[in-house]
Order: sequence, then structure tokens, then C-alpha cells
Amino acid sequence: MPTVIVEGPKIGVEEKRELVRRITAVITEVYGVPHVTVLIKENPPENVGIDGELLSDRRKG
Amino acid sequence: MPTVIVEGPKIGVEEKRELVRRITAVITEVYGVPHVTVLIKENPPENVGIDGELLSDRRKG
Amino acid sequence: MPTVIVEGPKIGVEEKRELVRRITAVITEVYGVPHVTVLIKENPPENVGIDGELLSDRRKG
Amino acid sequence: MPTVIVEGPKIGVEEKRELVRRITAVITEVYGVPHVTVLIKENPPENVGIDGELLSDRRKG
Amino acid sequence: MPTVIVEGPKIGVEEKRELVRRITAVITEVYGVPHVTVLIKENPPENVGIDGELLSDRRKG
Amino acid sequence: MPTVIVEGPKIGVEEKRELVRRITAVITEVYGVPHVTVLIKENPPENVGIDGELLSDRRKG
Repeated sequence: MPTVIVEGPKIGVEEKRELVRRITAVITEVYGVPHVTVLIKENPPENVGIDGELLSDRRKG
Repeated sequence: MPTVIVEGPKIGVEEKRELVRRITAVITEVYGVPHVTVLIKENPPENVGIDGELLSDRRKG
Repeated sequence: MPTVIVEGPKIGVEEKRELVRRITAVITEVYGVPHVTVLIKENPPENVGIDGELLSDRRKG
Repeated sequence: MPTVIVEGPKIGVEEKRELVRRITAVITEVYGVPHVTVLIKENPPENVGIDGELLSDRRKG
Repeated sequence: MPTVIVEGPKIGVEEKRELVRRITAVITEVYGVPHVTVLIKENPPENVGIDGELLSDRRKG
Repeated sequence: MPTVIVEGPKIGVEEKRELVRRITAVITEVYGVPHVTVLIKENPPENVGIDGELLSDRRKG
């Protein structure tokens, strides 16, 4: 603990590396604790609904 | 916010579209707020346990 | 399964009752399965950040 | 309910079977309730950050 | 990692102690990894819906 | 989307404000998208297990 779960779209490994490095720095500084776990969840656009519409349909419009 | 996470089995894109449209309508009416995110999580049957048994084993029985 | 987690603000018991009844109806029809669990998570406004700001600060503005 | 979500690395089906059987036994005994759902989430090592580093980078070191 | 999230009703501290001890033993043995985090989430019965009904309403019946 | 869930111990409102501001900045830069929701989950130490022991027991030691 703390554990951070990030629900977002797909990203590249370079972005994942940066995300984990920077999120961990923020958590460590704000909470003042050393151990941080980050779980990156990549959601395909047809599995995400924003205001009633699939993200995969929005992009077509 | 609100954010709704649906943990279920795999479904087709038509079902996802209907799910997001209808869940969003319910949330908007009950909470009285405009912005709703729905995340559909599709779990393979060998990753789900019901009452001690994998869903993938149950279906074989 | 399916399990639905709703992350939102605090609501009254009447709203919870309606939310569970209607979400369950949608899930049952879309997935065609009988057993549905809904978990309502009530987040205090100082624990929710929207676009970089606490919800509790936004309302003051 | 109860619902148990296990966030871990990839595992084989035999491990999943054992995990679900044993977790369910623990939950049933501690909570004294019959219905238990377990969701096994398999996270690729490049989607997990431990103390600021991707698990996939750590293993290379 | 692994991280285990248990969504259940309220329980006493003795049950929490047993739950964490036993879940951790299962995870350690099945995954073969040393570090395990367990998060116990206690849901009030009016925040849980089972098959369309609040748990708090069911108990009255 | 993206939505970030932070599972940690209790913190003060000043820490929450900083957490949301900084996490949102990181997400916005890494994902290149404008809308970010952060949910801060505060877990009491008797609801968190680390390596088989409740956090509330560890602190007594």
C-alpha cells in the first residue's frame, strides 16, 4: 500500500514507464510512505461508455 | 463521476452499446448528474469462480 | 456474476433502492443471466477529483 | 456477495482452480455466508509498477 | 502485488485478522510470491443489491 | 476517462488537494487527454493486510 489503479485507453510501454515513475513519485511524496503498486488497466474503446455512447462509436462520428 | 464498472462475461458490441446507453440513462436519472463513465470488464470463464468452482469447469458438467 | 460497482456521491436509501432495481433489470436483460450483485460506493466530495480539483472545492466556487 | 478480486500476474488454469477453491473456503468460513464470487485479474508485467519501476523492466535487470 | 480486494459485509477485527492471515497464505502458496496486500471493504447492507433488492430490505422480509 | 483509484490510508484535505492536482497533471501529460477523475479511497488500518498481518497490529509492535 498504497495501490493505484489507472483505468485508461491503451498506451505504449514508454508511456507506461513514465506513468509508473511519476505516479509513484507523487504518491511517495504525498503519503510519505515507500511502497507503491501501480496497476495500469488498458480498456479497448468498445468497452468504454462516455455519456451513453461507446468510445469506439464516438470516434467514428 | 459517476463511474460504473461492470464485471461480467464476454458480450458482443451490440450488447455493449445497449448496456452503456441504458446504464447511463439509469445513472443520470437516479443521481441527477450529466457525466457518466461506464467501464465494461469482460472476464474469461476460467478467471471467474462461483461458489468455489471455475465457471469454465461448471459449464463442462 | 455479473457484479456492478457504482462509484458516485452520497444518495438516499430510496435512490439506492431504485438504482439497484433498475441496474439489475438492465444487466439481466443484456446479459441474459439471473444473478446480479450491485455495490454502491458513496464517495465524499473531498475524496473526488475532477480535472485536477476536489469536488468539495468546486462547489464552493 | 462476498466478491473477491485478485490482482496478480498470469497463472495457469490449475492454479486458478486451486485459488478459487481455497479462497472460497476461507471466505465461507470467516463470513459464514454461502455465496462467493472470485474474479482473477491477470496483469501483464509491463502493466504493473512496483516502487516506480515496471515489473517487466525489473526482471531484465 | 498480488493485491486482493474483498468486498463483503461488516466484520469484527478478529475476523479481519483471520481473513488476512489465511488469504495471504493461499496467495503466497498459489502464486509463489512473498508480498501480498489485502484490502477489506465493508459494505453497509443498504449499499448492496442482490438480484434487484437491497440487502437491508431483504433482511426485513 | 481516465479514472484513477488510489487505495491508501487516511490523509488530510490538503494532501487530497495536492494528490488530485498532481495525479491529474501526470495523467493529462502521459495520456494526452483532458478529462481525469481521481477517487481517493481511505482505508482504516484494521482493514488493510500486509504480508499476512493487519496494519493496525503492525503498528502496535
